[in-house]
Amino acid sequence: MASLDPMFYPRSVAVVGASKDATKLGHTVLANILGGGYKGELYPINPTADSILGLKTYPSLTATEGPIDLAVIVTPAKTVPGILQECSKKRVRACIVVSGGFREVGVEGEQLEEQLREVLKASGLRLLGPNCQGMNNPHANLCASWPLIKTKGPIAIVSHSGTVGGAVQCWADDDGIGVSKFVGLGNRVDLNELDLLEFLGEDETARVVVLYLEGVAKGREFIELAQKISRSKPIVMLKGGRTESGAKAAMSHTRSLAGRYAVLQAALKRSGVVLVDSIEALYDASKILSFLTLPEGRRILIITNSGGAGILAADCCEDYGLKVPPLSETSAQRLKGKLPGPCIIANPLDLTSAGFDPEMYALCVKETATEPVDMYMTIFGDPIKGAAQVVKRLVKETQKPIVVTYLGGADVEKEEKAKMHAAGIPVFPSPERAIRAVRALAEYAEWRRFKADRYLGSTASPS
Amino acid sequence: MASLDPMFYPRSVAVVGASKDATKLGHTVLANILGGGYKGELYPINPTADSILGLKTYPSLTATEGPIDLAVIVTPAKTVPGILQECSKKRVRACIVVSGGFREVGVEGEQLEEQLREVLKASGLRLLGPNCQGMNNPHANLCASWPLIKTKGPIAIVSHSGTVGGAVQCWADDDGIGVSKFVGLGNRVDLNELDLLEFLGEDETARVVVLYLEGVAKGREFIELAQKISRSKPIVMLKGGRTESGAKAAMSHTRSLAGRYAVLQAALKRSGVVLVDSIEALYDASKILSFLTLPEGRRILIITNSGGAGILAADCCEDYGLKVPPLSETSAQRLKGKLPGPCIIANPLDLTSAGFDPEMYALCVKETATEPVDMYMTIFGDPIKGAAQVVKRLVKETQKPIVVTYLGGADVEKEEKAKMHAAGIPVFPSPERAIRAVRALAEYAEWRRFKADRYLGSTASPS
Repeated sequence: MASLDPMFYPRSVAVVGASKDATKLGHTVLANILGGGYKGELYPINPTADSILGLKTYPSLTATEGPIDLAVIVTPAKTVPGILQECSKKRVRACIVVSGGFREVGVEGEQLEEQLREVLKASGLRLLGPNCQGMNNPHANLCASWPLIKTKGPIAIVSHSGTVGGAVQCWADDDGIGVSKFVGLGNRVDLNELDLLEFLGEDETARVVVLYLEGVAKGREFIELAQKISRSKPIVMLKGGRTESGAKAAMSHTRSLAGRYAVLQAALKRSGVVLVDSIEALYDASKILSFLTLPEGRRILIITNSGGAGILAADCCEDYGLKVPPLSETSAQRLKGKLPGPCIIANPLDLTSAGFDPEMYALCVKETATEPVDMYMTIFGDPIKGAAQVVKRLVKETQKPIVVTYLGGADVEKEEKAKMHAAGIPVFPSPERAIRAVRALAEYAEWRRFKADRYLGSTASPS
Repeated sequence: MASLDPMFYPRSVAVVGASKDATKLGHTVLANILGGGYKGELYPINPTADSILGLKTYPSLTATEGPIDLAVIVTPAKTVPGILQECSKKRVRACIVVSGGFREVGVEGEQLEEQLREVLKASGLRLLGPNCQGMNNPHANLCASWPLIKTKGPIAIVSHSGTVGGAVQCWADDDGIGVSKFVGLGNRVDLNELDLLEFLGEDETARVVVLYLEGVAKGREFIELAQKISRSKPIVMLKGGRTESGAKAAMSHTRSLAGRYAVLQAALKRSGVVLVDSIEALYDASKILSFLTLPEGRRILIITNSGGAGILAADCCEDYGLKVPPLSETSAQRLKGKLPGPCIIANPLDLTSAGFDPEMYALCVKETATEPVDMYMTIFGDPIKGAAQVVKRLVKETQKPIVVTYLGGADVEKEEKAKMHAAGIPVFPSPERAIRAVRALAEYAEWRRFKADRYLGSTASPS
């Protein structure tokens, strides 16, 4: 949908309500746009200041010289309808209303939202929010949000909660994996999850779409669109308000009617959406789905130098419906002559202390090439140097997905992990988190193989 | 049990099998004892080298001058019985056999273990291992293990798996919380989980005992001892081999007969042991139990600046059997005049953007002092500066436990989190992990209140 380009890839941005006061969001947003290295024209709008953060300020939108693609509005709620009218006059093409104080505070706020809608109707302007944490697009060096996250990556996030989106961004940044987009939904006066899904479905920088939603506005349309997009790009979703306690809180937060989770859950699963139960599972699933090829089944061969971590992985596989089949006699015979005595030649394949040499992992993968499994899991459970180099080579040589866990390795672990992440190889911090992510990968792969072309709603046209 | 002091607090240590080759464990162990700042006498034993890592080496134990409290043995399995005899001759008081190649590799190894047992019987020497990842005691600056972890703290770990113990140590180190002890169990030729539990039960630096076990050698005695210790010190346990796949792998790893998990689970719960299902849950539970006072019930008041994170916390509370009762009219009235308009005065109590000022959290705790809840959860869901200072004050002023979650705060989060950890305030990285830890805290508190004095096995004498 080309019409959202002015929002995500604007040539010029105005920050209405830019502030000198570092405790104000109007300061933070301007500082983060600057800090993110935005290269287009940037206009701080403030009726009293001369300059903010070294930039010349303007008393109003209409006082600016050039055309403005995007206006980010951080002023008190009651001023926003007037500013929108100014946007319309100035032919601004998109705007983001960060300000709160609308529907979420009651009747008065609802009336303000009605006024926003009227301006939008007359102008064709598109609006994100109000009451949202803005938008971040590292691929355009544009962080009109907070915290400042600059790492470019494959994960696109659409969230009812700025914090959930912020947490996923922070973790992706810490891992060096990076972000495609972050979009805070807010009160959805104009743009909603449907518009954003459609846009992100076409956005090439987004390899996976992460959703945190407290309610779905147009259930049937959402399910159909989700199915259409899932056919080429995975969607991972966390639903806030799954339970009675949570649903009550969601009603206050975004006025979302939570609905019966079981019903939504069933429909989403049929549509290929990967559902998770926690923010960390949301991140882990998006991480694995961004990088690994899809496995052809649920059978996994675990190669570990830690017996304990291998056992815990096997326990988790059983919990999550993944298979740890016994090692075939053929592979066992092949490995017997080549691995040192203490190694346990089975599945999990336990290299014991021989695993301090990461080439042993490569040897195991090579000698089990004909093994009827769908993926490998390699567990590095000590400070094993050179693990990254070996895994990078294995990923090139092997068709099957390789899932990496690294733990108990202190500084060596940090170094090796950073190298793998830089090479697009996701690393998980525990066997349990890795296997939970593998389940997401396997579920999505199964849906793509067996179900992607079924269950299409009657009104949807298969593409 | 004073008899283990020579192992954990030795005045002199010999490393038998110390090596110049940095790829060998005999090098790593010596390097980590040096790197950890051990202050007693240190004797590298190596028949061919003159010096290793700047230390004078000795050709044999008997060639050393002074008395030796602890010998750490890192030589091939077949040499270990002879070295133990030398230990006996030299009147070494405790030894740790890191070397593998015993029972875990078959009949020949079993025979070697038999020889070890004979020497022990004759000498009174105590032995940890063989086939173990050694021992770390930061409180004695003695890391006879790997990786090198130096941070002194409250978490004592006894583990069948070096990696599981290593991971918990690494995380505790990263958080600045630190470790009391790490003990790799290995094949338990002499010392087993009973001996170590008994020792750690008395060790004042250990505020919580973390167990990773693949099997329990003496079920009944273990349950009774666990109950005795749980009455004053929490025990958190992860069982490897809960499932069929996992149990099969555990059989290969430590020859542990996994037994039926459900049976063990029921007995352990009666004994006050907090059972968890993953390594991260093990760490999180030990973190919360090390620092927080025990709540008097399961009712929690959630104070958040993030609606979404509050909702997810409420969802988790319902999943885990914790209560999020509605806010009383009294507290609501008190707060109404004092909080800005957009705040949602309920439970979760959503400060929205007002939460950027951490004093708002303090105000909420103060004004809800009479609220019938058993604990507070504060969620910081943005880069909120000064959070640590406020929480430190609140912890002093409030009797009820305060559980802190911080997420989505990038660098500010890292700074504030470090400050809180330094002050002994555990911080969790997501509402889900926090609430899972709270469940552990609440379960243990309930056991202490209602069950600690029941179910004592007939042979145990209540103390």
